[in-house]
Amino acid sequence: MRGKFITVEGGEGVGKSSNIEFIANTLREKGIDCIVTREPGGTPLAEEIREVLIARRDEKVCPDTELLLMFAARAQHLNEKILPALDAGTWVVCDRFTDATYAYQSGGRELPSEKVANLENFVQGDLRPDVTLLLDAPIEVGMARASKRAALDRFEEEEIDFFNRVRNNYLERASEDPERFVILDASQTLEEVQSDLALKLSELME
Amino acid sequence: MRGKFITVEGGEGVGKSSNIEFIANTLREKGIDCIVTREPGGTPLAEEIREVLIARRDEKVCPDTELLLMFAARAQHLNEKILPALDAGTWVVCDRFTDATYAYQSGGRELPSEKVANLENFVQGDLRPDVTLLLDAPIEVGMARASKRAALDRFEEEEIDFFNRVRNNYLERASEDPERFVILDASQTLEEVQSDLALKLSELME
Repeated sequence: MRGKFITVEGGEGVGKSSNIEFIANTLREKGIDCIVTREPGGTPLAEEIREVLIARRDEKVCPDTELLLMFAARAQHLNEKILPALDAGTWVVCDRFTDATYAYQSGGRELPSEKVANLENFVQGDLRPDVTLLLDAPIEVGMARASKRAALDRFEEEEIDFFNRVRNNYLERASEDPERFVILDASQTLEEVQSDLALKLSELME
Repeated sequence: MRGKFITVEGGEGVGKSSNIEFIANTLREKGIDCIVTREPGGTPLAEEIREVLIARRDEKVCPDTELLLMFAARAQHLNEKILPALDAGTWVVCDRFTDATYAYQSGGRELPSEKVANLENFVQGDLRPDVTLLLDAPIEVGMARASKRAALDRFEEEEIDFFNRVRNNYLERASEDPERFVILDASQTLEEVQSDLALKLSELME
């Protein structure tokens, strides 16, 4: 049996890390073998590309460069880690995937979505996540949580308009593909979110 | 007047560096403003991507990853350095460009050339070099020269069959586009090659 590919998406401070831990624990309690990974990153080479991507720098980063780097990291992660795991029957829980690229590079940076779609097909063929859990909260809620962290990276230092475009892009794409997306209200308490999550996971494990 | 975009191509040990220096000196002697640059690289970010690309590593580098990294570096180099220079009337002499990607990633690594063409259009639109100087020599001649250098990078340590595929790809593409390509016999002495080069450059400057 091929493993299931679960992606967890959302903007800054929506609680992805805590909820991913909860998802992995829930799966393992039911005897499901799973790995937790993240994008950009997930292999040593892909993590090196992540460092290049998020580093604050004086040089202007051309939006095409950013997009190609994202998919370079994704090609490596997919072929060297995600696909071998799924093929071996292991479930994969991934902190962000291609929906984040649509949200940040097309929504946030306003690149045409066709450019993202072109590279998505180039790298993934017809592979898509089995389910995408979108943690959604108003920007102010997420920003208030994220601001408690240490230094901001090149993405986190963007303006509020950027994050509003990211959120709207996530929500639009979720509404266009309700079969794959599950929207979770991340402005609730963590306990409330995880109660919603537990319900979705039990459906998925059936 | 827009500057001209000259690329210099060829395998290992064909004398690209010495000939590029000669080209730049010849142009400057004629009062032409020019810059010399290289791929992958050419800006601080693109040079960081180069380091990621050429580093020897235990992790298998997926061919799609390598190809996307090449074009990520190229998008940055093109938008932040090459195009602004050409627009300002400066000539650009570039050590390798997209023909090298066809030669190494499609010829050498045997990726379908359509994948390279897709990303070429993605990053460059219809921009192509004004002239491409292909320094060609039998593999043994180039390898004998290149082996005198220090440590080999991830590309230089490939097998002889790989370099033969690289050379053949260069020659095939040159024969398909004789308007743009100039093939120079790099097994000649440096003086002979430069005498051929000087002739081509004077045509180009007319």
